[in-house]
Amino acid sequence: MDLDSKETVEKILGGDVRTAARLIRDIDDGIASSREVLKALYPHTGRAYVIGISGFPGVGKSTLVDQMIHAYRTDGKSLGVLAVDPTSPFSGGAILGDRVRMQRHGTDPGVFIRSLATRGHFGGLTRSTHSVIDVLDAMGKEIILVETVGVGQDEVDIVTTAHTTIIALIPGMGDDIQAIKAGILEIADIFVINKADREGLKRTMNDLNAMLDMNSRWDDEGTWRPPIMATEAIRNKGVPELLSQIEAHKAFLFDHSKMHLKEHLRKRAFRELVDTVKESVVTEIVQKLENSESFQGMIDDLVEKRTDPFTLCEQIMSKQKLTG
Amino acid sequence: MDLDSKETVEKILGGDVRTAARLIRDIDDGIASSREVLKALYPHTGRAYVIGISGFPGVGKSTLVDQMIHAYRTDGKSLGVLAVDPTSPFSGGAILGDRVRMQRHGTDPGVFIRSLATRGHFGGLTRSTHSVIDVLDAMGKEIILVETVGVGQDEVDIVTTAHTTIIALIPGMGDDIQAIKAGILEIADIFVINKADREGLKRTMNDLNAMLDMNSRWDDEGTWRPPIMATEAIRNKGVPELLSQIEAHKAFLFDHSKMHLKEHLRKRAFRELVDTVKESVVTEIVQKLENSESFQGMIDDLVEKRTDPFTLCEQIMSKQKLTG
Repeated sequence: MDLDSKETVEKILGGDVRTAARLIRDIDDGIASSREVLKALYPHTGRAYVIGISGFPGVGKSTLVDQMIHAYRTDGKSLGVLAVDPTSPFSGGAILGDRVRMQRHGTDPGVFIRSLATRGHFGGLTRSTHSVIDVLDAMGKEIILVETVGVGQDEVDIVTTAHTTIIALIPGMGDDIQAIKAGILEIADIFVINKADREGLKRTMNDLNAMLDMNSRWDDEGTWRPPIMATEAIRNKGVPELLSQIEAHKAFLFDHSKMHLKEHLRKRAFRELVDTVKESVVTEIVQKLENSESFQGMIDDLVEKRTDPFTLCEQIMSKQKLTG
Repeated sequence: MDLDSKETVEKILGGDVRTAARLIRDIDDGIASSREVLKALYPHTGRAYVIGISGFPGVGKSTLVDQMIHAYRTDGKSLGVLAVDPTSPFSGGAILGDRVRMQRHGTDPGVFIRSLATRGHFGGLTRSTHSVIDVLDAMGKEIILVETVGVGQDEVDIVTTAHTTIIALIPGMGDDIQAIKAGILEIADIFVINKADREGLKRTMNDLNAMLDMNSRWDDEGTWRPPIMATEAIRNKGVPELLSQIEAHKAFLFDHSKMHLKEHLRKRAFRELVDTVKESVVTEIVQKLENSESFQGMIDDLVEKRTDPFTLCEQIMSKQKLTG
């Protein structure tokens, strides 16, 4: 590791905001030297408690996160906040970073807020998210809030690396909510129905409860049944109760006799390793493909239907034999 | 190709619904034999016009799609409809398939509706979506509607394989809409603001227009500036106008002097090839990883911070040397 990287590592372990901001920008831009720094930071990670929050636009996630920041700050905790926006591949991080809620905490040295938007071409966003969480963790942040816009597959992969995953909804989202329920059921540790003063709260709660009831997993005493919380974030209603539930879930995870934390850490390590390998391999193969002389011809063949993607793929794979 | 596969190919080219349904189930389940059938179908694809529709839950996409189906059927067009739900990895296709809107067209032989939900572990959903579109295309469907729930990265990848990509919004979705706008701007061919009777229509339209104005791309006469349509799908208001805009975009694409269609087809072929290779490579490497003797030890090393994911990845990659 060169001197610059060494200095970066030391400064980040000391909590230096400016150095961390630069490193995170390098990560987002896919700059190779950031890897050496991340390697050196890795042994210093694992102390922060990571909370993931996902939910569709319009559910008031921003306000909810803002109130959570406020509550944790009042409690004296240091915070790292990461906003991940897989839907803005071209916008850079600026848009989320500028959001209104950020401003009230902008001058508080106990809160460090960053956003990630560059997904790279091949699933780099999930890999970058792991990295930024590691940076915030190595900086000594006690709580890390990871917020994603939307509930697509990327978002699911991102929030489930958290210790506690919160899914935010609003009352009466229509029949689409029926369609997504089964998916989010599997990843939520806590459900929050925000804007609880709106019509349809009871029905949404009943629907969620009915879905949970159908799942036999909860029969086992050693499992965590996700609680359903009603909040009105804008009036700070229900937020202290939400924080209590996060504490309860943390206590559940850290109950050593039950080994839940170990299981969680192994799952998270597996996912981080797979995402790293995946990004590496796919980047390498696709670059090779795009740079190969025969590439334009392959695309022509596909467009003209002289071949098909599977046959082409087999040809590419047999040339790029994966030995090992 | 075995006799069974040959028969499957012939039946699908003849439009047989039962055979197509079975093949699509095989694709969703990742059954290997479906590849041989897909290879044989590929030369028969490329005739359908593919329309992608994406948007967050609650914007009334279901109703919009229902009205579009109705309008195209009235016009005598045969339709394939594919609902993709990357947020329900565990629910199978049943939930979307059962959705209310499906029922009114359930007995119409001119409409074939399928849903996909299994994402597989490593980006298989996007690959499967290409395949199902190819099946519907080979069946002779004139119009294929691809609907996704949510607007995450997967959804973006999916809808942009369409000839015309529609992004559905509603008035006044709050500040989250600000955050996603830049991303969806890049992919939308047409914006639909549904539930146009709601408060905030004018502001949302102005906001979108302002974003479009900022993009210098439209200065070029040879580019398509996405129109912004207001609809009330539930009253069928604005739907005929939407269909006219789809026709206009199609005419733009098929204007041979401008080569837009060729560019689109090459982009789509590239994406399909990359998705195929990606799925193949990642599946192979990750399976190898999970089956290797040292795998559990690697995870232990990560959890105990004895190594880091990047160093491990380099070790794995150097062993599985990609020659070629």
